[in-house]
Amino acid sequence: MNYERYFSENKDQHLSELMEILSIPSISALSDYSSDMIRAANWFASQLIHAGMEYVEIHLTDGFPIVTADYLHAPGKPTVLVYGHYDVQPVDPLPLWTTPPFEPEIRDGKLYARGATDDKGQLFLHIKAVEAILKQEGTLPINIKFCIEGEEELTSPNLPSFLEEHQQMLAADVLLISDMAMLEKGRPSITVGLRGVCSLEVSVRTANSDLHSGLFGGGVPNALNALVSLLASLHDKAGKVTVEGFYEGVPEITPSMRAEVVEMNHDEEGVRKSLGLDALYGEEGYSFIERVGVRPTLDFNGVYGGFQGEGLKTVIPREAHAKISCRLVGEQDPQDIINKITRHLEDSIQPGAKLFVKSGFQVPAFRLDSKNVFLQLAADAYEEVYGIRPLFTRDGGTIPVVEMFSRIFQAPVVLMGFGLPDENLHAPNEHFNLENFDKGLLTITSFLKRL
Amino acid sequence: MNYERYFSENKDQHLSELMEILSIPSISALSDYSSDMIRAANWFASQLIHAGMEYVEIHLTDGFPIVTADYLHAPGKPTVLVYGHYDVQPVDPLPLWTTPPFEPEIRDGKLYARGATDDKGQLFLHIKAVEAILKQEGTLPINIKFCIEGEEELTSPNLPSFLEEHQQMLAADVLLISDMAMLEKGRPSITVGLRGVCSLEVSVRTANSDLHSGLFGGGVPNALNALVSLLASLHDKAGKVTVEGFYEGVPEITPSMRAEVVEMNHDEEGVRKSLGLDALYGEEGYSFIERVGVRPTLDFNGVYGGFQGEGLKTVIPREAHAKISCRLVGEQDPQDIINKITRHLEDSIQPGAKLFVKSGFQVPAFRLDSKNVFLQLAADAYEEVYGIRPLFTRDGGTIPVVEMFSRIFQAPVVLMGFGLPDENLHAPNEHFNLENFDKGLLTITSFLKRL
Repeated sequence: MNYERYFSENKDQHLSELMEILSIPSISALSDYSSDMIRAANWFASQLIHAGMEYVEIHLTDGFPIVTADYLHAPGKPTVLVYGHYDVQPVDPLPLWTTPPFEPEIRDGKLYARGATDDKGQLFLHIKAVEAILKQEGTLPINIKFCIEGEEELTSPNLPSFLEEHQQMLAADVLLISDMAMLEKGRPSITVGLRGVCSLEVSVRTANSDLHSGLFGGGVPNALNALVSLLASLHDKAGKVTVEGFYEGVPEITPSMRAEVVEMNHDEEGVRKSLGLDALYGEEGYSFIERVGVRPTLDFNGVYGGFQGEGLKTVIPREAHAKISCRLVGEQDPQDIINKITRHLEDSIQPGAKLFVKSGFQVPAFRLDSKNVFLQLAADAYEEVYGIRPLFTRDGGTIPVVEMFSRIFQAPVVLMGFGLPDENLHAPNEHFNLENFDKGLLTITSFLKRL
Repeated sequence: MNYERYFSENKDQHLSELMEILSIPSISALSDYSSDMIRAANWFASQLIHAGMEYVEIHLTDGFPIVTADYLHAPGKPTVLVYGHYDVQPVDPLPLWTTPPFEPEIRDGKLYARGATDDKGQLFLHIKAVEAILKQEGTLPINIKFCIEGEEELTSPNLPSFLEEHQQMLAADVLLISDMAMLEKGRPSITVGLRGVCSLEVSVRTANSDLHSGLFGGGVPNALNALVSLLASLHDKAGKVTVEGFYEGVPEITPSMRAEVVEMNHDEEGVRKSLGLDALYGEEGYSFIERVGVRPTLDFNGVYGGFQGEGLKTVIPREAHAKISCRLVGEQDPQDIINKITRHLEDSIQPGAKLFVKSGFQVPAFRLDSKNVFLQLAADAYEEVYGIRPLFTRDGGTIPVVEMFSRIFQAPVVLMGFGLPDENLHAPNEHFNLENFDKGLLTITSFLKRL
């Protein structure tokens, strides 16, 4: 069985199928695209049938459908549950896209489209790997299940109850997810740590109407002045979060972790250049890899209030808003962090201004032991295809489903990322490097056969 | 000559004329109303002719027309130049108006309509006072000129060049403007100070695209984090502006100014309640009247960046923006203040973030000596009509034309406000208290006769 030749011969066909699903604007956050969401779910169901999977089902939820399927003809062999999602992020700002986000185009060996890597492209690899083995060998060496949802970009609100209800149907020995990036081009990695996340929406309100800054300026609280000083109080000059107790439960970086980081030989200067930055910035005393991998953060994702039009308007705004999120590590508890930030804000709000806080996301950080046998088999598969053993890395991102799956099924999670860090996930000009499309197919195939 | 009887007998006629011009939606900011702007200019020209003024002219400009007229038959007597504007602010939010903004209605002795007090109503008083004297006495005791523009609400972009070009035609010994409020009902005041204003638009840019906070959070500069800490550095905890040299040229409050403030017996608690605030807020060590009248400010009028939609998006924004304006007093120079703020921002910007600053408004503060003979005559006129000598007050607002007129014509400016502070200028349900309509006519008549 020469899978390299198989995938090479079928590459045009595979790419044309992938471009088909990338043309469907399945944006879960925007209600205008509801019918596209259904189309995308149906498309993946058809793909699974076409691949030879059985019991393909489209389950209705309170949100968008979840697609499941299985192929369970290897008694005594492990069962793998593959997770992926068919929804994508919104595309604004649209003018920054070189080609329209839902008109896939290949340029310089990269496939450009919203969802190319997150996650339609990576999910597609798993379906095609299974299809390849079934076509070439008539059966699968393991048992496999799929669970494909359409609300990942909304933090999967309906997935937990679905998993609880279908625990038996979805039970597996190992979970397999490709919804992340590898270390860098040509340097594969397997994620053994993910940061958690929590978020808050903060509003400050002052007078009962916007006020004229000539008549009132200097004598009344300005919601924006109040919000800005409130937000600024959350960090010190060294980039540390000043919220009391924020760093409780954050593991100290050990010498062995420092050694792993050195082994990665990460190209900080390359990151800086590729982002067009004069300088990287972060918490004093840590490298870039440490800052994004094992240190918690507090970022403002949106701040707005007052006049945003052209020119100037001398208004004293009555309200101002901020969206804040934290990436969490170690034992930091999302609800506890939200409480601590809220207390800090309450203690720091300026006289005359009222504070309103609303909780958002809450996902704890996630850790896996890299010595786990499934992770080692995945590393073997990577090594076979990429010619280099992957590093076990801690990723800065949060994949809520990972924590959820591992908690509900008590099974290890193999996080095989085939994206690259600069592929513009959630941003204009998202793309997928086709080198990893080819190698991803081979790596997954090899992994499934090794189990 | 009993002017009280004259104005009383003609009140219905006068109000019906005023309601006519208040029915014309002359909103200068919205191009849909261009033909209404012309109608409003024509209406004032007809009024001036009807009042007995001579050389009534409608001058075209690059924007909306300027109406001028004069009556110069008192050789050896002073010449008064009356300024007013026929344009009004937009009316949104329309649903908050009790009656439609351009269908004037009298309720409880108040005339409700957009422009009722700012400035059609107040300007109208001057025309009717001149008409009254001409009708009753056949001539005027002084020389008078009118200059009525239609772009005040747009900050008078075409007025400076018009004034320069027609300097001789408009030359006067004193300028007379009624486009402001008195201290409170029954307590007339003459404005002898206006704050200046300067403004800046500030942008912070970081990476060449928005970034995923999971992958990059903690390791790269966040434009919002950078902007927030930058803006917060402009004030200290006591509400003082921390920009080096900001307070240079700001006059110390003298014991006599403090005494004047005490004499005003201003109702701070009433202001607080009417604005729905828990507390007023401002620079430590100053009363509300001092804060808004004789102290400079630095306010954020708009701040925005990142995600503003519903819910949360864990994005690290690449750019963030702020609109800043300062009210200026004393000798503070607008350009100098802009330079000082810019320098402060440049010195405080976080590594990895780039700063962009654009200058905006620049109007110096304005001061008049209350001992000036014209101001004392105006005070006499008020005292005759209101039975109480007006206070000389410093207003927190900026009226760019005042500074412009006094600079170009080198003449004192008498600022006789007949509005009240709670008459909803620039807001829904603008109105004009008819008590000040009646007393305003008498006060202006008395002032003109006293000159």
